[in-house]
Amino acid sequence: MKIALAQLNYHIGNFESNTAKIIEHIKIARTNGADLVVFAELCVCGYPSRDFLEFDEFIELCEASAQKIAKECYGIACIIGLPTPNHRTEGKDLNNSAYFIEEGKVKAVAHKALLPNYDIFDEYRYFEPGTEFSCIEFKGHRIALTICEDLWNTIEDPLYVTRPMDILIQQKPDVMINIAASPFTYNRDEDRIDILGDNAKRYELPLLYLNNVGAQTELIFDGGSLIFDNTGKLIDELPYFEESVAYYNLDDKGKVTFDHPSTIRSIRPSDIEQIHKGIILGIKDYFHKSGFKQAILGLSGGIDSAVVCALAAEALGAQNVMAVLLPSRFSSDHSIKDAEDLVKNLGCMSETIAIKDVTEAFENTLSPQFKGLPFNIAEENIQSRSRAVLLMAMCNKFGYILLNTSNKSEAAVGYGTLYGDMCGGISVIGDVYKTQVFELARYINREKEIIPLNSIIKPPSAELRPDQKDTDSLPEYDILDKILKMYIEGRHSSTSIIKAGYDENTVRRVIRLVNLAEHKRYQTPPILRVSPKAFGMGRRMPIVGKYLS
Amino acid sequence: MKIALAQLNYHIGNFESNTAKIIEHIKIARTNGADLVVFAELCVCGYPSRDFLEFDEFIELCEASAQKIAKECYGIACIIGLPTPNHRTEGKDLNNSAYFIEEGKVKAVAHKALLPNYDIFDEYRYFEPGTEFSCIEFKGHRIALTICEDLWNTIEDPLYVTRPMDILIQQKPDVMINIAASPFTYNRDEDRIDILGDNAKRYELPLLYLNNVGAQTELIFDGGSLIFDNTGKLIDELPYFEESVAYYNLDDKGKVTFDHPSTIRSIRPSDIEQIHKGIILGIKDYFHKSGFKQAILGLSGGIDSAVVCALAAEALGAQNVMAVLLPSRFSSDHSIKDAEDLVKNLGCMSETIAIKDVTEAFENTLSPQFKGLPFNIAEENIQSRSRAVLLMAMCNKFGYILLNTSNKSEAAVGYGTLYGDMCGGISVIGDVYKTQVFELARYINREKEIIPLNSIIKPPSAELRPDQKDTDSLPEYDILDKILKMYIEGRHSSTSIIKAGYDENTVRRVIRLVNLAEHKRYQTPPILRVSPKAFGMGRRMPIVGKYLS
Repeated sequence: MKIALAQLNYHIGNFESNTAKIIEHIKIARTNGADLVVFAELCVCGYPSRDFLEFDEFIELCEASAQKIAKECYGIACIIGLPTPNHRTEGKDLNNSAYFIEEGKVKAVAHKALLPNYDIFDEYRYFEPGTEFSCIEFKGHRIALTICEDLWNTIEDPLYVTRPMDILIQQKPDVMINIAASPFTYNRDEDRIDILGDNAKRYELPLLYLNNVGAQTELIFDGGSLIFDNTGKLIDELPYFEESVAYYNLDDKGKVTFDHPSTIRSIRPSDIEQIHKGIILGIKDYFHKSGFKQAILGLSGGIDSAVVCALAAEALGAQNVMAVLLPSRFSSDHSIKDAEDLVKNLGCMSETIAIKDVTEAFENTLSPQFKGLPFNIAEENIQSRSRAVLLMAMCNKFGYILLNTSNKSEAAVGYGTLYGDMCGGISVIGDVYKTQVFELARYINREKEIIPLNSIIKPPSAELRPDQKDTDSLPEYDILDKILKMYIEGRHSSTSIIKAGYDENTVRRVIRLVNLAEHKRYQTPPILRVSPKAFGMGRRMPIVGKYLS
Repeated sequence: MKIALAQLNYHIGNFESNTAKIIEHIKIARTNGADLVVFAELCVCGYPSRDFLEFDEFIELCEASAQKIAKECYGIACIIGLPTPNHRTEGKDLNNSAYFIEEGKVKAVAHKALLPNYDIFDEYRYFEPGTEFSCIEFKGHRIALTICEDLWNTIEDPLYVTRPMDILIQQKPDVMINIAASPFTYNRDEDRIDILGDNAKRYELPLLYLNNVGAQTELIFDGGSLIFDNTGKLIDELPYFEESVAYYNLDDKGKVTFDHPSTIRSIRPSDIEQIHKGIILGIKDYFHKSGFKQAILGLSGGIDSAVVCALAAEALGAQNVMAVLLPSRFSSDHSIKDAEDLVKNLGCMSETIAIKDVTEAFENTLSPQFKGLPFNIAEENIQSRSRAVLLMAMCNKFGYILLNTSNKSEAAVGYGTLYGDMCGGISVIGDVYKTQVFELARYINREKEIIPLNSIIKPPSAELRPDQKDTDSLPEYDILDKILKMYIEGRHSSTSIIKAGYDENTVRRVIRLVNLAEHKRYQTPPILRVSPKAFGMGRRMPIVGKYLS
């Protein structure tokens, strides 16, 4: 039996394009002699479709698409993922299902049993877990078909009380196929290989694992579909961050072979290389899928906006990126020079718009109220917000999308101005700590100097008052980021972070800043997610609370 | 046996104040001769504590608080709600539990079995469902103790596959106690009475139902705890939107009696009266619990900001509300007059800050880029955003919190300026349709004219260009709101809304506007929730999608 794995990029709710893409790949796979072509979890509607799933019409469109696909499915079988109505009286209205389609008909249906409901996942919001499991007979083989999380219930600390493969294995399958929508984080690929390999080994079956690829707003799916032999050894790996189709033969003894050279990555890519690729895909799909072409951003001469500008130029083409220099009386000469150098290096569009007149107009307008009170955060924020108004006016006039340039360290401690530098359609590096932004800059410069070295080596500053430096009010970033990572990703208590060797006052202050900034983060743009715990839908905190704040 | 129901207002994560409040009410109830005092679901940490629950230290603090409470619990028993570690290897790390505490010790523990995971609820994110159920013996009675949703599995369309009372009833209890955190919506109180009354009737047992009261950011808990006899008849009802303690006697035949006059509301309050009370509590708790006193808002002379100003004055005191008139060249004379009249009627603070100089500064600054292109949405939004910068500068200088004044109809169709009039710490009427805002204005004026009649009767306008009216680009609000309600609350398809008699083009256009505005709503403040489907945490839509858009 020849199996095609079709690792494709879908668009949420775009039934027309998703269906066309699936049908096109059925035809290609058939032409290439495949007996079965496998598509990803919920490929028909895109993942995550979120509360669209609560609309009956949306679910009907999923079924209608499946029927269209079935009509094209002759001389080859296919597996597709879609939500289906739960026909039992009890429980949620839907199942997260896979159809096995053969000769124009849905021959078998599998329901996902383990429904992730943590971090960015909300599957139990919509779906009732499957409780019955049957292998699928096809071309003399017996396929154990499961969906994503179904293979992720670890032995040591099981999150679920069941394990579908424990039931399926009793029916003596000779191969496992798992269709997934497993989002990217920079440390996820090795976990996947370990956990899926453990399944192949435990059940002594080869495993074909097919993942989604492509970004859906903040969530990036990295592809990297995997093939294991029945000892749990990884024997092939599809490319990451791009669409790809590969073919495998399953012989009568349950052995998987293939004709192409194995594309297993011999050296695991670094975290930063993965983050770089993920963000590029994230930007590309955000613009492409929302029908926009051109990005705008404010370029300060600092490292954050420089990195975002370089990433945008790579994702969209430099000709589609408008960098705006917005100098104030506090902008240093080197900042303007650094920003200009970057524009030259990239070849993107640029404008310079001084903010002096508008900030003065604000200060004059407010003088009857402010009555000579000293310059403070109010005037600092006026600068940042004036820049946002100018950038948004450019968006409204010319159809750009504003890129947010805040990094994760700033977003964490609330070092940013709401409705000012925290604006944007999408946050590009909001899940990248400042110390990682430096690494990203060096990675972007790996072949030649794109980001001016001076932007990398000078001390970070918001330049909202004379001689301001980030370290005036924050710890050094290498300390700050380690504390933040323990608190945010690790969910450590202050006590345990202090025990790890950090200064008690610093730790308590940093955690307090993080908790007090929830109201700011609530109103920020979606953040391209590259870490296991990003701000946004995966981290849900009370705003009005009183805990470590 | 004498039972005290303590309907109290907790603060998320504020263990000190929550514990002190619980202990204080144990003492009061004991003094008043109660044998048992009942507190609400998750009262120890506040509901919803959201991802604080993922911090081990947070859970340890819950247990430490419970132990402190237990030490005060002599000569009286109490029921408290808190998250507890799940001691089984499988499943989520926590249970949503109730402790029955007697003579300084936790005598029994009940775990919630039905975990709501829809709309604003995320309980399956944190909790493993309870699977074992035992009645509690106390003072010759047998108590069936359950938690909130445990009694909400309807017979007709059950959302869950189990029903804890079906097991508990076999142990022959003589009373049901249910502790809850059931948030307010304007149509919820009658549902509660029906569903809980059905339980009392089905199991032929009296039911004491104790709800949370108080607002936690956007979620408003309305109290209104309920007491039913064993025929399902409502025999008493605690006040709504305020703290309250009431005492009940349970005799040996399982009959509930009480000494105070029954406070069952003889006439159900109107939707608008309930919304009014809910919003007042929402504003009050938002400020009180986040440690702020004074609100600021932009007053346009229109009805939305007038209603928000009146609500804020009632919640915080007029002396704590700063109304800022921000006229532009497009503001009509009557708008300024209407705003001034409102300020006079309320007696709140006010300032007038003309935006002409700042908008001109923006337009001049952008003239090299805009190159004489015609006035359009760019210039309209500059006005709205200039106002936001001015209001936020006042916040930063003087410590106000900005109130957002957008209504639900505008928020739905994206008729508002991101980083402009969509700013604010909390959205006061973002879950109130425009037609309801009119009703709310008339309700506020029920005794005397507070909101100038002219603000109510004139045609709504954003006044961002000459002679602009909302109806230039939107359908009449009475049509718009009905379509929006069917789509948002009812989750009807366009087909079914058109079938209900609305113009096809209008329906398709409105739904398209709603879906295209997801990116705007993503960045707006938390919205005080008064309807069964509010924008925010209870409605989770893809931003980059392609469905009816």
